[in-house]
Amino acid sequence: MAKRIAIVGYGNWASAIAKVVGENVHKYSEFETTVAMWVKPKMFNGRLLTDIINEDHQNPMYLPNVMLPSNVIAYSCLKDTVKDANILIFVTAHQMVQDVCAQIKGHVHEEAVGISLIKGMVTQSDGTANPISKEISSHLNIDISVLMGANIANDIAAGGFAEATVGCIHPEHGEMFQRMFDSENFRINVVRDVYTVELCGALKNIVACAVGFAEGLGLGSNAKAALIRLGMHEMIKFIETFYPGSDLKTFFESCGLADLIATCEKGRNSRVCKAFVASDKAMHEVEAEELNGQSAQGPPTASEIYGMLRQVGLEESFPIFTIVHRICTRQVPASDLKRCLQNHHLHQTVQSKEDCSSNSSGVSA
Amino acid sequence: MAKRIAIVGYGNWASAIAKVVGENVHKYSEFETTVAMWVKPKMFNGRLLTDIINEDHQNPMYLPNVMLPSNVIAYSCLKDTVKDANILIFVTAHQMVQDVCAQIKGHVHEEAVGISLIKGMVTQSDGTANPISKEISSHLNIDISVLMGANIANDIAAGGFAEATVGCIHPEHGEMFQRMFDSENFRINVVRDVYTVELCGALKNIVACAVGFAEGLGLGSNAKAALIRLGMHEMIKFIETFYPGSDLKTFFESCGLADLIATCEKGRNSRVCKAFVASDKAMHEVEAEELNGQSAQGPPTASEIYGMLRQVGLEESFPIFTIVHRICTRQVPASDLKRCLQNHHLHQTVQSKEDCSSNSSGVSA
Repeated sequence: MAKRIAIVGYGNWASAIAKVVGENVHKYSEFETTVAMWVKPKMFNGRLLTDIINEDHQNPMYLPNVMLPSNVIAYSCLKDTVKDANILIFVTAHQMVQDVCAQIKGHVHEEAVGISLIKGMVTQSDGTANPISKEISSHLNIDISVLMGANIANDIAAGGFAEATVGCIHPEHGEMFQRMFDSENFRINVVRDVYTVELCGALKNIVACAVGFAEGLGLGSNAKAALIRLGMHEMIKFIETFYPGSDLKTFFESCGLADLIATCEKGRNSRVCKAFVASDKAMHEVEAEELNGQSAQGPPTASEIYGMLRQVGLEESFPIFTIVHRICTRQVPASDLKRCLQNHHLHQTVQSKEDCSSNSSGVSA
Repeated sequence: MAKRIAIVGYGNWASAIAKVVGENVHKYSEFETTVAMWVKPKMFNGRLLTDIINEDHQNPMYLPNVMLPSNVIAYSCLKDTVKDANILIFVTAHQMVQDVCAQIKGHVHEEAVGISLIKGMVTQSDGTANPISKEISSHLNIDISVLMGANIANDIAAGGFAEATVGCIHPEHGEMFQRMFDSENFRINVVRDVYTVELCGALKNIVACAVGFAEGLGLGSNAKAALIRLGMHEMIKFIETFYPGSDLKTFFESCGLADLIATCEKGRNSRVCKAFVASDKAMHEVEAEELNGQSAQGPPTASEIYGMLRQVGLEESFPIFTIVHRICTRQVPASDLKRCLQNHHLHQTVQSKEDCSSNSSGVSA
């Protein structure tokens, strides 16, 4: 029997991925040719968004001016959307994950598999933070893979070239997800390092905040490049510390290097954080002004990661992650970022010839 | 006896590094407090550039509006500049290296050590290309280290924060170079992987050309991020193939990741190559129009690297390096770049369920 695919989400990225998957299912008989998409009941210009999607095949609220394939069918009931699905694509806002899981628990096919496209972490009651795939998986008791990469949604929806990385434990699921998503203009590589793929997607938003602060402070391109590099080191070290066993090569996949670069160059986090430097408002106020109702994931992710670091006393080993949280919450001024760069522990200490004369050859001026 | 430092070069980067070194020598008694700088006899506004540097402590021709330390002394005679120097800093244009070496051969202190800040390769008569440090070292028979990184010269001269990587075989030279260059705003890390450090500095200019072509073609941020990522893979593979023994970690130093990002974002190569797409002129004509007399190293480096790849039949294993050379020389249109991205061999091939039914579980629609 062909597999039924359901997309849990209706925003910008969800709509772009609906276009990708909706076009791809026709290529393989293993998939049902209609793709279900959960769309929360919302009005747009006097019509229900589900009706607009099903009648006009567009999502003008989140992805204007893009035609969706007519085999993408919007449903307003979340439980109905997921109940017969064999494959679930989770692509909601980071903040909605726990609520969505609570609603569909017990209504998901027991042999279903899922894939999360959501970038972020979920703070637990004990103060630790879970990768979102782990959160979904523990609520629903199904296997969850992840898809992350340099994936600006509007570009992909417009047919621009992009790559992505699927992180997947089971090779047969990886092959299936590759068929579901891969096309000439959207190339998928599959790796087994699920948490590395996913955490890269979350952590790069913190680095993008640092780059935004640097722009707001007028630090130049050298400093921004240094922040991205040192930020990448902190990403690697964080994952090695909290989720050991990652492969350094995964950081060279689209989910690592490429997503970090694209996000720092052109993402919401850099934009909001740049504006934050010139403002005296709280981060959520600057976000409301700058992003027109969308949210930036960097500040909450920085808070979640800071909570994990503080629990084990490692704040000072991750100076960029730590200072981003402290700047976002106005505990320190943004201008402290330059000192953080200058004093980052990854810079080797200079030994003066005078300081180590006992080891020197005795030649001196 | 304190060591005498001579800078072989007088352009933008040479002047910025003269400021860094001129300020640093005061901190350590191991260095002479005057720094010699070779400046080719050139007139600027009716005065000799050497006189302007020695009287006004500025280099208005290449680094306007920046004061140089008064202990940087310009010399017009290359042989006089180098003859008593213990430490030589090579920072000329890539094209001048062979001529400079020929001039000073036999005039360099036999125990001198050198460091090259020049990014590029030098083609030999047999068609192979040498890293510049190897070229200098074989001409002068002295040990040559390298310094590379995300180092936009004007930013550094203006006191902006930057990092750099020194590649150095001998640890005691590495420590000395760190003292010579490191300051609060210019952080130096030392690694032993000399050729990796140096080749990153040369190869990233080819990737920056690809990014410039992508911009000229209107490909989006996802595609640019993918090019940088795939370009980094080709850099790693090229170095592994031709200079085996590199450490993957070196690519995460400033000379690798950070320089690649800064150059692709804001370098001359991207600018010229973007303009090239909209023009029907030859690359050197576009360069003359766009760069105001400065040169872009990417196109000649692509040619040198292509020559090495062709000698061993590896052009198709380095699709981005190869297509950049072919586009620069108008053998193929720039629009072929998108196909190169789509078909890059680093993307895994999708297996359709139908194609591999003998391995499948037999479940089908």
